[in-house]
Amino acid sequence: MAEPLAPPAPDDRGSAKAGQVHEKIANYLRKEISGGRIGAGDPVPSESELCRKFDSSRGPVRQAMATLRSEGLISSGRGRRSVVLGTVPSQPFDILYSFTQWCVESGIVPGQRTEYVTRSPADDLTAGALDIAPGAATVSVLRLRTMDGAPAMVERLLYPIEFGRHVLSFDPDSGSIYQRMRDQGVDIDHATRVIDAVAADATDARLLGIDVGAPLLRIQRRAFTRDGVPIEFSADHYLPTKASFVLTTVNGAPAPFTMVAGETTGLSARSPWR
Amino acid sequence: MAEPLAPPAPDDRGSAKAGQVHEKIANYLRKEISGGRIGAGDPVPSESELCRKFDSSRGPVRQAMATLRSEGLISSGRGRRSVVLGTVPSQPFDILYSFTQWCVESGIVPGQRTEYVTRSPADDLTAGALDIAPGAATVSVLRLRTMDGAPAMVERLLYPIEFGRHVLSFDPDSGSIYQRMRDQGVDIDHATRVIDAVAADATDARLLGIDVGAPLLRIQRRAFTRDGVPIEFSADHYLPTKASFVLTTVNGAPAPFTMVAGETTGLSARSPWR
Repeated sequence: MAEPLAPPAPDDRGSAKAGQVHEKIANYLRKEISGGRIGAGDPVPSESELCRKFDSSRGPVRQAMATLRSEGLISSGRGRRSVVLGTVPSQPFDILYSFTQWCVESGIVPGQRTEYVTRSPADDLTAGALDIAPGAATVSVLRLRTMDGAPAMVERLLYPIEFGRHVLSFDPDSGSIYQRMRDQGVDIDHATRVIDAVAADATDARLLGIDVGAPLLRIQRRAFTRDGVPIEFSADHYLPTKASFVLTTVNGAPAPFTMVAGETTGLSARSPWR
Repeated sequence: MAEPLAPPAPDDRGSAKAGQVHEKIANYLRKEISGGRIGAGDPVPSESELCRKFDSSRGPVRQAMATLRSEGLISSGRGRRSVVLGTVPSQPFDILYSFTQWCVESGIVPGQRTEYVTRSPADDLTAGALDIAPGAATVSVLRLRTMDGAPAMVERLLYPIEFGRHVLSFDPDSGSIYQRMRDQGVDIDHATRVIDAVAADATDARLLGIDVGAPLLRIQRRAFTRDGVPIEFSADHYLPTKASFVLTTVNGAPAPFTMVAGETTGLSARSPWR
């Protein structure tokens, strides 16, 4: 329910319709940086330049600068003019979420070979990961993902039946499950990932053509609706030569991620697929 | 040089002296969230509540909300009230940067056993990583880091002599090189990390007590001054049971990190220590 007397959509980020000035300014600066027109080490346009350019007061300009600073794109300034950091641009939610979209964005042809799609009751571990009752129906998927035809990643997906039914009625060899979910009106609002390293198990080894025990980059992910209902629990096991994460932090700005000590990760230390 | 007619320190983030209203509001909300007084799924206080509480106009309130949204702490709202996400809090720059500080913050006793501190001329690979001339003097360090006395990580550090001289004049078994640098006035402004998985080499295996080829979480890092001069190039090889990264992304907000395809990472595919 909307808050009484709330102003119209004050925080409709990323929507072209909302057209908020601070978002326009941030998008302008991101494009200038990603397009190389403002290079690493170059000063960011001054507040007064941006105010004139966007016919804006200083508030939205400062809000845009704060956003870019949080994204690690520009320096903290500290009383001096902020400069562009020599960093990679940030990645939109969809591209980071969808292997298919990520490959296409990277100029790589994505592919997949599905090992199984299974409907089965949740054991205790699965139930815990998805916040459902033990015995409730789930859908699990195991796919080999390929990049330009070469094995790259073993993908394990797990859904409560409410969301997984869209996968059961879909050919998982035909492409993006993420896109399928979107098309069925599933609104993925946010996702939490745990990134670590793991030894290849027998399934990984067989599908990727490597030795059991070889190092893999593991990305465990839980995705949620806006109300915090789990949609999906997944584990991607990447060949280290195929993917890595790049992160930038700026002194004075908290990093939007955490390094966690020990084996307890907030997800599950054990895998529900094994 | 200061920009002519620039307002005083418009983006002095993180400084208590600057005392900007949007930072005060953001810090207040972060503390409410990390202290559990606003839990996951709870609505964030309304704009008007925050305006009253901080005697502020809507601009700083919206700026604070945009910052928290970028950090993955609150939902995107999209015209409705934002809610707190069930996520880990973000991590301050220092704690993410310094193994010593990270352990202390995690309730773990950090330790180290230094294998070597070496002064030597840069080969081509090292020169490239540090943006210095081949043959210029560098300082390299190899240390085993421990958590509560147990082997946890092999740390490889590399400095141009300008910064490395502070390490040469320091006992690296006595504690934090990061703190030593800070004490010597080295101002680390930002850092870029590449995270992937790697197989243990003979040195890793010997120091960590594992088999050659076992999986390790690798964090390669370059740290810079505000002007983009490289201070340090490092590679941390963690036992996967000892550390992992947790990241949250929110639909509609760009992620402040990037997953990169392929082996070229922007740092170096080869290690200058081997």
